Amino acid sequence: MSIKDKIAVIGIAQTKFGENFDMSYEDMAVEAAFGAMEDAGVGPDDIQAVWLSTFDPSITGGMGRAGSTIVDVLSLRDRPVSRVTNYCSSGTDAFRNACFAVASGEYDVVLVLGCEKMRDVGSRESLVKGAAEGGHPVWGKGMTAPGMFAMRATRYFHKYGIGRETLAKVAVKNHYHGSLNPYAHFRKEITVDKVLKAPLIAYPLGLFDCTPTTDGAAAAVITRAENAKSFTDEYVLVKGLGLSVGVGDRVFFDPNDPVLNFQSTKEAAKQAYEMAEIKDPRKEIDLAEVHDCFTITEILNYEDLGFAEEGEGWKLIEEGKTYKDGEIPVNPSGGLKSLGHPIGATGVRMIVEVANHLLGRAGDRQVKDAKIGLAHNLGGPGSVATVVILGQP
Amino acid sequence: MSIKDKIAVIGIAQTKFGENFDMSYEDMAVEAAFGAMEDAGVGPDDIQAVWLSTFDPSITGGMGRAGSTIVDVLSLRDRPVSRVTNYCSSGTDAFRNACFAVASGEYDVVLVLGCEKMRDVGSRESLVKGAAEGGHPVWGKGMTAPGMFAMRATRYFHKYGIGRETLAKVAVKNHYHGSLNPYAHFRKEITVDKVLKAPLIAYPLGLFDCTPTTDGAAAAVITRAENAKSFTDEYVLVKGLGLSVGVGDRVFFDPNDPVLNFQSTKEAAKQAYEMAEIKDPRKEIDLAEVHDCFTITEILNYEDLGFAEEGEGWKLIEEGKTYKDGEIPVNPSGGLKSLGHPIGATGVRMIVEVANHLLGRAGDRQVKDAKIGLAHNLGGPGSVATVVILGQP
Repeated sequence: MSIKDKIAVIGIAQTKFGENFDMSYEDMAVEAAFGAMEDAGVGPDDIQAVWLSTFDPSITGGMGRAGSTIVDVLSLRDRPVSRVTNYCSSGTDAFRNACFAVASGEYDVVLVLGCEKMRDVGSRESLVKGAAEGGHPVWGKGMTAPGMFAMRATRYFHKYGIGRETLAKVAVKNHYHGSLNPYAHFRKEITVDKVLKAPLIAYPLGLFDCTPTTDGAAAAVITRAENAKSFTDEYVLVKGLGLSVGVGDRVFFDPNDPVLNFQSTKEAAKQAYEMAEIKDPRKEIDLAEVHDCFTITEILNYEDLGFAEEGEGWKLIEEGKTYKDGEIPVNPSGGLKSLGHPIGATGVRMIVEVANHLLGRAGDRQVKDAKIGLAHNLGGPGSVATVVILGQP
Repeated sequence: MSIKDKIAVIGIAQTKFGENFDMSYEDMAVEAAFGAMEDAGVGPDDIQAVWLSTFDPSITGGMGRAGSTIVDVLSLRDRPVSRVTNYCSSGTDAFRNACFAVASGEYDVVLVLGCEKMRDVGSRESLVKGAAEGGHPVWGKGMTAPGMFAMRATRYFHKYGIGRETLAKVAVKNHYHGSLNPYAHFRKEITVDKVLKAPLIAYPLGLFDCTPTTDGAAAAVITRAENAKSFTDEYVLVKGLGLSVGVGDRVFFDPNDPVLNFQSTKEAAKQAYEMAEIKDPRKEIDLAEVHDCFTITEILNYEDLGFAEEGEGWKLIEEGKTYKDGEIPVNPSGGLKSLGHPIGATGVRMIVEVANHLLGRAGDRQVKDAKIGLAHNLGGPGSVATVVILGQP
């Protein structure tokens, strides 16, 4: 018994993503949460429960470790707040758990909030910490995120004969999309030449192949689909949900292991497509927000999500098919590449973005005739993936 | 639309709680999870999703930060695993989220696993870390857990005229119960005299007023009630669930604040009693596993859970009414006091204990004629509380 079409997203909002030095964790939570409530036409008294996604509270001295740090500023004291944390998939998994709770009938209206402060420490400290804590304690030690994904890139190069120029085109596309998005961290267009000449982070990944370190928050208010119209005419439905957890790290330590793609993404997509009754994602998905933590990741995501055959993901970007006006628009928001990746907020931000396109509210970056959209996160060392599919009613 | 009576607990298990130096995090997860599966008559192939509760993965170098560290040893690779973390209420909140997911209809059989390794660092390091990370970043800085609860105790003394002897009786009771529990960390009976003469930790709390630092794991397999009989005749039903999040810390900094009891526990209990349709907990609850992190906490829990009026909780222990054969048995397991408190595991362990009593499997510590039982966690600086009510079908 699937919960397809049983949950409606009735309110969405996000803060500007970037160096939000002028906003505290609480400021961002307030802007996103009250924005989503206002969009839904509800107030704090209507919110019966909250799902909070913050990956690393230690940067802000504990903010977001549990709901006790936000209930006062959100006027939600004494309400139930669960914190869901699942590496970079935290935001979409918090959303998934909230959907189950509403579908169970126990709550009518709940809030999902993703909030993450990352710029209050230096990016080196933040990245090193993330890598140290993100990996498997045995398989993942000593790795950094760029290092891990760089190994996928060199293998992809070796196997399919592409080079850094193809990766660069992913960055160029996403920075172009980001230039159209007022919420993006970076809003400047870049060129392939600029990407190739930028400092190397971990060969073959250069500065522009990597997502920046960023602050941000995003929120959504959801209810049962049957009640949606009593709140607003502008809502979208949850069509599919998927989460898969594997052991992603090992591939990096076995040069003979043939694995290149992300099994967790494939499995999460399979679950979500099954629930949404999607047979051919290439034809049925109108836009996708995918986890482009590095340029190579977006190309592998194309394959793992079924937008291209294995080994042919690179062709989609070479042929320009994933631009916002292309055959299968990917990251019309600008992606993690230009928005940045405040870890706990990203998944919720993707849901906000997809809903905005389905509602025709995406401004200059609007994907035309978007009826079904997908959000995808990949977390840990490729070991955790979530897929959320939203559609028009 | 409540989920009362819609969820069945069909399998339960726990490891020995204690200094499990001979078991890794994974060893404990395996023993608890496979124990619960065996009890339910299912195998890993039947488990469709997992909810994991681990509070602090940093002690074990990242084990339990997400499901990727356990899916291989549990033969659950590629399955959905969500980590729920909510201070000391993590275990019961993971259970709550799992209940919603099954009640939504999306899954038939899921596993809830609480697992925490705490002894691999010294207790000082563990406690200091817990206090540093557990508190509110503004209100909670500089406090330790014993210090925070000691302030409640001195205020209780001042207001109601009791002394350390009354607190000691909670410890004596729980150590007696623990002496009957093969899973307890400490299995020796103690005396009031011994409690009073023990080294002080934070006046008026001495060594025996505090829960020890402990390793342990516990697990439960749940399904929809309508399917329970197809697995086993020995199952219990979920009657009530409550979670409340407040701002507990502030009381410690305002000597004029009249607050002494835990608003979060009162509110979580209210939610759970409403769902379970319990009008008079004193008469309707046959046993309770409550969060006795310190002896004073158990006395406040009596009041906040409605077993006694405010200011009269101390009478229950003075009159011996909360012994396993008393009017309202509390912590027949031995509680956090003698079992210890592996943070993420405790809530699940309580659910296992309550179910054991309802199923008549609790051995020497069995509460007679137990038909309805309650599990309660209190987390953070009194700011997060969960209540789970289980009953016979």
